[in-house]
Amino acid sequence: MVAVFRLAPPEAIEILDQTLLPFEEQVIRIADVAALCEAIGALRIRGAPLLGLAGAAGLALAASQNGPTDKDLSHAARVITATRPTAVDLGLRAGDALELALALPVDERAGALWAYAARLHGDRIREDAAISAFGADLLVERGSVLTHCNTGELATGGAGTALGVIVAAWKRGRVERCYVTETRPLLQGARLTAWEALRAGVPATLLPDTAAGSLLASGAVQAVITGADRIARNGDTANKIGTYQLAALARRHAVPFYVAAPLSTIDPNCPEGHHIPIEMRDGREVGGFGDHRWSPAGIEAYNPAFDVTPAELITAIVTEQGVIQPPFTAGIRRAQSERGEQ
Amino acid sequence: MVAVFRLAPPEAIEILDQTLLPFEEQVIRIADVAALCEAIGALRIRGAPLLGLAGAAGLALAASQNGPTDKDLSHAARVITATRPTAVDLGLRAGDALELALALPVDERAGALWAYAARLHGDRIREDAAISAFGADLLVERGSVLTHCNTGELATGGAGTALGVIVAAWKRGRVERCYVTETRPLLQGARLTAWEALRAGVPATLLPDTAAGSLLASGAVQAVITGADRIARNGDTANKIGTYQLAALARRHAVPFYVAAPLSTIDPNCPEGHHIPIEMRDGREVGGFGDHRWSPAGIEAYNPAFDVTPAELITAIVTEQGVIQPPFTAGIRRAQSERGEQ
Repeated sequence: MVAVFRLAPPEAIEILDQTLLPFEEQVIRIADVAALCEAIGALRIRGAPLLGLAGAAGLALAASQNGPTDKDLSHAARVITATRPTAVDLGLRAGDALELALALPVDERAGALWAYAARLHGDRIREDAAISAFGADLLVERGSVLTHCNTGELATGGAGTALGVIVAAWKRGRVERCYVTETRPLLQGARLTAWEALRAGVPATLLPDTAAGSLLASGAVQAVITGADRIARNGDTANKIGTYQLAALARRHAVPFYVAAPLSTIDPNCPEGHHIPIEMRDGREVGGFGDHRWSPAGIEAYNPAFDVTPAELITAIVTEQGVIQPPFTAGIRRAQSERGEQ
Repeated sequence: MVAVFRLAPPEAIEILDQTLLPFEEQVIRIADVAALCEAIGALRIRGAPLLGLAGAAGLALAASQNGPTDKDLSHAARVITATRPTAVDLGLRAGDALELALALPVDERAGALWAYAARLHGDRIREDAAISAFGADLLVERGSVLTHCNTGELATGGAGTALGVIVAAWKRGRVERCYVTETRPLLQGARLTAWEALRAGVPATLLPDTAAGSLLASGAVQAVITGADRIARNGDTANKIGTYQLAALARRHAVPFYVAAPLSTIDPNCPEGHHIPIEMRDGREVGGFGDHRWSPAGIEAYNPAFDVTPAELITAIVTEQGVIQPPFTAGIRRAQSERGEQ
């Protein structure tokens, strides 16, 4: 099975070109920072945690291929971060890698950076595996699960978060079918999650975002699981646009709604969801897909990238340290202090 | 402004080719039953009430162009009805027209059929105007309105139902902005309602179906209005897939949810929504649009054409005779008996 992300020190990073999915599985070899920036900018590699890996690996690549001086590495970190300024993990991990390198002698930097990137990748794989296992424990009732957007290996570089849980639960015989929303406007569900589910062998059914209410009302779904982009201290969760309405509909039909995300997703500086800034994206993503247009020119668009699901609609939050149950404010405080002690 | 539907007896029917919208406004002249069937099959003309008009006009065209004998007309009615077997209005009106014609001397049939089609068109225009006016009366709070799918002239041949209400309320200064869902999978909102709103001059904003919850939670919407495909005696309403979840979200945010539809939409034989058969459509409509695919081959799909909104989520039903308030069972019974007396 072709790898989504692979370090090939000291020459290269190999990535699966996600823009060609689901129709073509092409691994591209990235041998310098310019090529990495092109791949990030063109969304060949995407997903917040996976972009974090790319940020760290980019510094390693810079040290090996472009040069390990302070100037070389600072420039590389700046250029990589600027490629997608709203992707927090990208700049964060590139920054961490830079800080680590600058504290070392010049001739040790490349090796240390490759080791750092490998450690991050290992952390991701280990944390995702833990999330998957804890989440699968929650799905005690055999049945079908609904998910949104893309939260598999393509997004994280590990087993994924919500999709990792679903695949793990399916392997245990607890999930019979995974329902996948198309996830307009960028169609991550239709393009990427559908591909990952088929690749994993999980029976999967795609639905238009309009059909989620009908599906939940039909009784066909026993749990909804999504990832998270940012979680406030009270459990309010920002995630891909459309998540909130799934949570509200799940509640209406008494279906549990789970969030699966690493503890690093919790923002200790954010008390409640309404403090989370919501990125408004280009209106041209609505009324078409890529170059294919179906709406009249001149129509305005409402295109937030995320919405906020209030904590009261969330049944539990699955992390790599275990499951946080409501009330989330206390549970999150406890999880963060345990994490701090590790 | 180019007409959506026009009778040109005895030679032709003129229709706006809806498959070319929103990019091209081309009127096509249909001069025989074969051309009409092609236009219906290719969705150049669509929308339940408008297809009803097409069915009646098709019989008139058959009488003038193909021949007015019993055999000619029965054949035409059969062929027209078979073009879209699930479009109830099409077959119903073609059948009504056939019955009317067969009761007349052969040489009077063509004239009577054109007159019947013209009367139906006039009824549509008059009923839509009444729905628009009664609906606009309801929107007392100045603000913005959210709608789903396409319910304008393109769907009915009159001013439309839900979109007719919105345009009328906008003309009175009561609607500031119309929010339009894309309406996956067939994108009637993005393609047709966006075009109709721009054409009418109503300020309009398109949104992905995923963003409706976020929009309602933001407080930007003061009312939701949709059409209906079939209404049960208790007020349960089948309409385009995605309507139910809008109604559920509107209720969650204390936003009124109105249904606008002619009384003919009420099915006196249907006591409750769960008796309404839901058409399951080709899975290939999900995971792509037209020939443009974005999902992997082999993915299954859940693709119901409609969902059912329970009466308890509906604030009021706007008809050509006035507004039906809850409890709907009594209100609908009263409206139907008044209609029977007319």
